Amino acid sequence: MNIDMIRAARDRIGAYIRQTPLLNSPFIDETAGRRVWIKPECLQHTGSFKYRGARSAVSALPADVRARGVIAYSSGNHAQGVALAAREHGVDAVIVMPADAPRMKIDNTRALGGEVVLYDRAAGEDRDAIGAEISAARGLTLIRPFDEPQVIAGQGTAGLEIAEHAQTLGITEADVIVCCGGGGFSAGIALALEAEAPGLRVRPAEPADFDDMTRSLATGTPCRNAKPSGSLCDAIVSPQPGDLTLPVLNRLAGPGLVVSDDEALHAMAIAFSRLKLVAEPGGAVALAAALFRRDEIDGDDVIVTISGGNVDAEVFQDALSRYAE
Amino acid sequence: MNIDMIRAARDRIGAYIRQTPLLNSPFIDETAGRRVWIKPECLQHTGSFKYRGARSAVSALPADVRARGVIAYSSGNHAQGVALAAREHGVDAVIVMPADAPRMKIDNTRALGGEVVLYDRAAGEDRDAIGAEISAARGLTLIRPFDEPQVIAGQGTAGLEIAEHAQTLGITEADVIVCCGGGGFSAGIALALEAEAPGLRVRPAEPADFDDMTRSLATGTPCRNAKPSGSLCDAIVSPQPGDLTLPVLNRLAGPGLVVSDDEALHAMAIAFSRLKLVAEPGGAVALAAALFRRDEIDGDDVIVTISGGNVDAEVFQDALSRYAE
Repeated sequence: MNIDMIRAARDRIGAYIRQTPLLNSPFIDETAGRRVWIKPECLQHTGSFKYRGARSAVSALPADVRARGVIAYSSGNHAQGVALAAREHGVDAVIVMPADAPRMKIDNTRALGGEVVLYDRAAGEDRDAIGAEISAARGLTLIRPFDEPQVIAGQGTAGLEIAEHAQTLGITEADVIVCCGGGGFSAGIALALEAEAPGLRVRPAEPADFDDMTRSLATGTPCRNAKPSGSLCDAIVSPQPGDLTLPVLNRLAGPGLVVSDDEALHAMAIAFSRLKLVAEPGGAVALAAALFRRDEIDGDDVIVTISGGNVDAEVFQDALSRYAE
Repeated sequence: MNIDMIRAARDRIGAYIRQTPLLNSPFIDETAGRRVWIKPECLQHTGSFKYRGARSAVSALPADVRARGVIAYSSGNHAQGVALAAREHGVDAVIVMPADAPRMKIDNTRALGGEVVLYDRAAGEDRDAIGAEISAARGLTLIRPFDEPQVIAGQGTAGLEIAEHAQTLGITEADVIVCCGGGGFSAGIALALEAEAPGLRVRPAEPADFDDMTRSLATGTPCRNAKPSGSLCDAIVSPQPGDLTLPVLNRLAGPGLVVSDDEALHAMAIAFSRLKLVAEPGGAVALAAALFRRDEIDGDDVIVTISGGNVDAEVFQDALSRYAE
């Protein structure tokens, strides 16, 4: 993993991804007690940064390997990113999803050209066995969601954009708070900033009770979450940090930041009223950290990602009912 | 009114406005039956394109005139645009608003530095008399919301950006559907396109029963609306076309497009799920026209504006309850 891979990823995907802007609001600055610059990856194709990594990984495959198709295990944003990237390359994408995944995510993945294979979690069907059988029969290449060098390189293209925006704004030192699951987005951005804006430092943000990365960084050793799921921020919950991502973040990241589900909902309502953006709960944890953990952050400026906007309408309505001003 | 004024406006305001992108979604394309390119002015500072015109008008004043301050009559987006533009120039902005305007809009205008003067519509207080008295006493300059050359020139900067994006995309012929109240945004864009992308044609979009511009264009003479208010799309309702804007649009625009309040709400729900954007009802009428008036539009591509995102949470929740997929 190095900056050359990220630059090469940008050469491959730059014409296809959205180069998202850096937004701000005087109202958010006032609540946060400093200037807050928001990178809205909810505006990325498929609604999240996952498309960057998926497009990077699919485009990096040798043509003959890619032609046989790809496979991913995902109930969410990675599924949509891989489906779209594969369709754009004219190759098959098999997406293995739990049968009880939200209907909208299944429909969206299919609509983007993904061949959805459902398995029954409750009946004990083995996702990995199902996927391995299909892969072997068809010669599909597995695209992992975060512990995959070309995925991390693709996510790192967002870091190159952050470095450029920061330079334009004259920001040479700041925390960059990144919504963190397995750590692919955080690690990619951290590697890009190390090379292009060494005064900017990644701070992973996580939901309470699923703060495996924060605890792993604090102790220096990989920590697991006690539960596999159960957060409103499920889109960014993973059992533990990645084998590739944790060493990168141990070396480059500052301490993690942890927010509650309610704080994530509150941040969603603020993104609605002040930025006119739709954020999903997991996509709003970095903004929540900037708003509600101001004493744990240093400096006059902070940069935050909104990592995704694929949210059920009911969850969004709940956020507005509780927190809209 | 000419292209030189628009180019001069961009020279003055280009470093301060957000140059909004052009977004798209395969799901929206499918519903609309053609490629739809969305210019999200809800992401503009203050949440609407009005900031462009306000910043243009305030910055165009002679310094000694500007120093005495400005005044605007507005209960909505123009108020916030003028307040912010004045604050950025370090001058006073008096905003005359009805006392029964939404609390959030009053609060936002004040928070942006506007000196809000409330009048009581129900008690028959005369807005113009109140404003004239304050203006005379303090030497304030009135910034009209649309029938004002430098405001139209500022809105036209969005047209310059549309022309540039269209060129990048290789689009040489298309309708450009613009949310239309008094016609300042439509006229500014039309003038910019006439000079920079003559194959692109503005089509004003309006809410049903408040389609004064559509009827005026159809008949060639100014038509008034029967009612002063009563649309969910109130943010873009004006009694009749402007004296400056109608001649421009008579010369340059195609036929208007008219959508119902329900169609505007439906478009808001689609912007939520497919674009991750918050649109207000009046800001969504152009997208609604692209989605639900496909037989009245020609060509493989259409460009639409989302003009603003300042919407009450309850209205937004209603849109999601009724139309979210």
